[in-house]
Amino acid sequence: MSLALDDSQWPEHLAPLKEVDNLLRCGICFDYFNIAMIIPQCSHNYCSLCIRKTLSYKAQCPTCCVAAVEPDLKNNRMLDDLVKTFNSARQQLFQAVLDSPSVSPPA
Amino acid sequence: MSLALDDSQWPEHLAPLKEVDNLLRCGICFDYFNIAMIIPQCSHNYCSLCIRKTLSYKAQCPTCCVAAVEPDLKNNRMLDDLVKTFNSARQQLFQAVLDSPSVSPPA
Ligand SMILES: [Zn+2]
Ligand SMILES: [Zn+2]
Ligand SMILES: [Zn+2]
Ligand SMILES: [Zn+2]
Repeated sequence: MSLALDDSQWPEHLAPLKEVDNLLRCGICFDYFNIAMIIPQCSHNYCSLCIRKTLSYKAQCPTCCVAAVEPDLKNNRMLDDLVKTFNSARQQLFQAVLDSPSVSPPA
Repeated sequence: MSLALDDSQWPEHLAPLKEVDNLLRCGICFDYFNIAMIIPQCSHNYCSLCIRKTLSYKAQCPTCCVAAVEPDLKNNRMLDDLVKTFNSARQQLFQAVLDSPSVSPPA
Protein backbone atom coordinates (compact mmCIF):
# COMPACT_ATOMS: atom_id res chain seq x y z
CA MET A 1 0.00 0.00 0.00
CA SER A 2 1.61 3.25 -1.07
CA LEU A 3 -0.46 5.48 1.21
CA ALA A 4 1.52 7.15 3.97
CA LEU A 5 0.22 9.57 6.55
CA ASP A 6 2.37 12.58 7.16
CA ASP A 7 2.43 14.38 10.48
CA SER A 8 -0.14 16.97 9.54
CA GLN A 9 -2.79 14.65 8.08
CA TRP A 10 -5.49 13.30 10.35
CA PRO A 11 -7.70 10.48 9.05
CA GLU A 12 -11.27 11.69 8.87
CA HIS A 13 -12.55 9.52 11.72
CA LEU A 14 -9.89 11.00 14.01
CA ALA A 15 -10.48 14.62 12.97
CA PRO A 16 -11.89 15.60 16.40
CA LEU A 17 -8.36 15.16 17.77
CA LYS A 18 -6.91 17.82 15.49
CA GLU A 19 -7.92 20.58 17.88
CA VAL A 20 -6.18 18.79 20.77
CA ASP A 21 -3.09 18.54 18.57
CA ASN A 22 -3.20 22.27 17.88
CA LEU A 23 -3.32 23.11 21.58
CA LEU A 24 -0.13 21.13 22.19
CA ARG A 25 1.85 23.30 19.76
CA CYS A 26 3.98 26.33 20.58
CA GLY A 27 2.69 29.64 19.20
CA ILE A 28 6.21 30.67 18.23
CA CYS A 29 7.55 27.64 16.31
CA PHE A 30 4.20 25.81 15.72
CA ASP A 31 5.83 22.50 16.59
CA TYR A 32 4.85 20.46 19.66
CA PHE A 33 6.04 22.06 22.90
CA ASN A 34 9.68 21.19 23.58
CA ILE A 35 10.32 21.77 27.31
CA ALA A 36 7.13 23.76 27.88
CA MET A 37 7.43 26.90 29.99
CA ILE A 38 4.46 28.82 31.39
CA ILE A 39 4.38 32.56 31.95
CA PRO A 40 2.49 32.43 35.28
CA GLN A 41 1.09 35.96 35.08
CA CYS A 42 -0.89 35.18 31.87
CA SER A 43 -0.86 31.35 31.69
CA HIS A 44 0.57 31.26 28.14
CA ASN A 45 3.04 28.51 27.21
CA TYR A 46 5.95 28.18 24.79
CA CYS A 47 8.99 26.00 24.20
CA SER A 48 11.81 26.96 26.52
CA LEU A 49 14.18 28.02 23.74
CA CYS A 50 11.46 29.83 21.75
CA ILE A 51 10.30 32.02 24.63
CA ARG A 52 13.79 32.72 25.98
CA LYS A 53 14.92 33.96 22.58
CA THR A 54 11.76 36.05 22.21
CA LEU A 55 12.05 37.61 25.68
CA SER A 56 15.68 38.54 25.03
CA TYR A 57 14.44 40.89 22.29
CA LYS A 58 11.24 42.13 23.94
CA ALA A 59 10.25 41.60 27.57
CA GLN A 60 6.62 40.62 26.99
CA CYS A 61 4.44 37.62 26.21
CA PRO A 62 4.19 37.38 22.39
CA THR A 63 0.51 36.39 22.64
CA CYS A 64 -0.99 38.87 25.12
CA CYS A 65 1.85 41.40 25.58
CA VAL A 66 1.88 41.16 29.39
CA ALA A 67 5.29 42.23 30.75
CA ALA A 68 7.49 39.16 31.30
CA VAL A 69 11.16 38.41 31.85
CA GLU A 70 13.07 35.15 31.78
CA PRO A 71 13.04 34.59 35.58
CA ASP A 72 9.20 34.60 35.46
CA LEU A 73 9.20 31.40 33.37
CA LYS A 74 8.25 28.16 35.12
CA ASN A 75 8.30 24.62 33.76
CA ASN A 76 4.89 23.28 32.76
CA ARG A 77 5.88 19.61 32.80
CA MET A 78 2.35 18.36 32.35
CA LEU A 79 2.46 19.74 28.80
CA ASP A 80 5.67 17.81 28.10
CA ASP A 81 3.96 14.65 29.39
CA LEU A 82 0.88 15.37 27.29
CA VAL A 83 2.96 15.99 24.14
CA LYS A 84 4.80 12.71 24.64
CA THR A 85 1.67 10.69 25.42
CA PHE A 86 -0.52 12.29 22.76
CA ASN A 87 2.17 11.92 20.12
CA SER A 88 2.59 8.24 20.95
CA ALA A 89 -1.20 7.72 20.81
CA ARG A 90 -1.33 9.56 17.49
CA GLN A 91 1.34 7.31 16.01
CA GLN A 92 -0.46 4.17 17.19
CA LEU A 93 -3.79 5.42 15.80
CA PHE A 94 -2.21 6.38 12.47
CA GLN A 95 -0.49 3.01 12.23
CA ALA A 96 -3.81 1.27 12.86
CA VAL A 97 -5.29 3.18 9.91
CA LEU A 98 -2.44 2.09 7.64
CA ASP A 99 -2.80 -1.51 8.82
CA SER A 100 -6.56 -1.62 8.37
CA PRO A 101 -7.92 -1.60 4.79
CA SER A 102 -11.47 -1.29 6.14
CA VAL A 103 -11.00 2.24 7.43
CA SER A 104 -11.09 4.90 4.75
CA PRO A 105 -7.84 6.77 4.07
CA PRO A 106 -7.64 10.54 4.55
CA ALA A 107 -9.07 12.71 1.77
CA MET B 1 -29.04 -0.70 19.76
CA SER B 2 -28.73 -1.14 23.50
CA LEU B 3 -24.98 -0.63 23.68
CA ALA B 4 -23.93 2.52 25.49
CA LEU B 5 -20.42 3.69 26.28
CA ASP B 6 -19.90 5.03 29.74
CA ASP B 7 -17.27 7.63 30.54
CA SER B 8 -14.63 5.17 31.62
CA GLN B 9 -14.84 2.74 28.68
CA TRP B 10 -12.61 3.31 25.68
CA PRO B 11 -13.31 1.35 22.49
CA GLU B 12 -10.33 -0.86 21.74
CA HIS B 13 -9.21 1.04 18.64
CA LEU B 14 -9.03 4.25 20.72
CA ALA B 15 -7.20 2.68 23.67
CA PRO B 16 -3.99 4.67 23.01
CA LEU B 17 -5.91 7.78 24.10
CA LYS B 18 -6.60 6.39 27.57
CA GLU B 19 -3.21 7.55 28.81
CA VAL B 20 -3.89 11.07 27.57
CA ASP B 21 -7.22 10.95 29.41
CA ASN B 22 -5.46 9.91 32.61
CA LEU B 23 -3.06 12.86 32.42
CA LEU B 24 -5.96 15.29 32.25
CA ARG B 25 -7.34 14.11 35.61
CA CYS B 26 -6.70 15.64 39.03
CA GLY B 27 -4.74 13.44 41.45
CA ILE B 28 -7.04 14.43 44.30
CA CYS B 29 -10.54 13.87 42.87
CA PHE B 30 -9.59 11.76 39.79
CA ASP B 31 -12.03 13.71 37.67
CA TYR B 32 -10.94 15.96 34.78
CA PHE B 33 -9.25 19.15 35.98
CA ASN B 34 -11.80 21.77 36.95
CA ILE B 35 -10.05 25.16 36.92
CA ALA B 36 -6.54 23.70 36.85
CA MET B 37 -3.96 25.29 39.13
CA ILE B 38 -0.22 24.66 38.91
CA ILE B 39 2.16 24.68 41.87
CA PRO B 40 5.02 26.44 40.06
CA GLN B 41 7.77 25.14 42.33
CA CYS B 42 7.07 21.47 41.40
CA SER B 43 4.87 21.75 38.26
CA HIS B 44 2.08 19.55 39.71
CA ASN B 45 -1.53 20.42 38.88
CA TYR B 46 -4.89 20.02 40.61
CA CYS B 47 -8.42 21.40 40.46
CA SER B 48 -8.62 24.76 42.17
CA LEU B 49 -11.05 23.61 44.88
CA CYS B 50 -9.25 20.30 45.48
CA ILE B 51 -5.83 21.84 46.05
CA ARG B 52 -7.11 24.80 48.09
CA LYS B 53 -8.91 22.45 50.45
CA THR B 54 -5.84 20.19 50.70
CA LEU B 55 -3.43 23.08 51.36
CA SER B 56 -5.69 24.41 54.11
CA TYR B 57 -4.97 21.19 56.05
CA LYS B 58 -1.31 20.71 55.11
CA ALA B 59 0.90 23.27 53.34
CA GLN B 60 2.51 20.93 50.82
CA CYS B 61 1.95 19.40 47.40
CA PRO B 62 0.07 16.11 47.92
CA THR B 63 2.12 14.42 45.19
CA CYS B 64 5.72 15.42 45.93
CA CYS B 65 5.44 17.08 49.37
CA VAL B 66 7.20 20.29 48.33
CA ALA B 67 6.18 23.15 50.65
CA ALA B 68 3.31 25.12 49.08
CA VAL B 69 0.72 27.66 50.18
CA GLU B 70 -2.38 28.98 48.45
CA PRO B 71 -0.76 32.19 47.11
CA ASP B 72 1.77 30.02 45.22
CA LEU B 73 -1.00 28.60 43.02
CA LYS B 74 -1.24 29.88 39.44
CA ASN B 75 -3.89 29.15 36.82
CA ASN B 76 -2.83 26.59 34.21
CA ARG B 77 -5.47 27.56 31.65
CA MET B 78 -4.00 25.40 28.92
CA LEU B 79 -5.12 22.36 30.92
CA ASP B 80 -8.67 23.72 31.09
CA ASP B 81 -8.59 24.20 27.30
CA LEU B 82 -7.20 20.70 26.82
CA VAL B 83 -9.85 19.13 29.09
CA LYS B 84 -12.59 20.90 27.17
CA THR B 85 -11.20 20.06 23.73
CA PHE B 86 -10.21 16.48 24.55
CA ASN B 87 -13.56 15.78 26.20
CA SER B 88 -15.40 17.09 23.17
CA ALA B 89 -13.22 14.98 20.85
CA ARG B 90 -13.81 11.93 23.05
CA GLN B 91 -17.57 12.38 22.87
CA GLN B 92 -17.46 12.72 19.08
CA LEU B 93 -15.26 9.64 18.74
CA PHE B 94 -17.48 7.59 21.07
CA GLN B 95 -20.58 8.69 19.19
CA ALA B 96 -18.97 7.61 15.91
CA VAL B 97 -18.44 4.14 17.40
CA LEU B 98 -22.08 3.92 18.44
CA ASP B 99 -23.18 5.11 15.00
CA SER B 100 -20.96 2.69 13.10
CA PRO B 101 -21.86 -1.02 13.21
CA SER B 102 -18.60 -1.89 11.41
CA VAL B 103 -16.38 -0.90 14.33
CA SER B 104 -16.22 -3.44 17.12
CA PRO B 105 -17.84 -2.45 20.43
CA PRO B 106 -15.76 -2.27 23.62
CA ALA B 107 -14.95 -5.55 25.36
ZN1 LIG C 1 8.41 26.61 20.17
ZN1 LIG D 1 0.47 35.85 27.62
ZN1 LIG E 1 -9.75 17.65 41.60
ZN1 LIG F 1 4.36 18.59 43.60
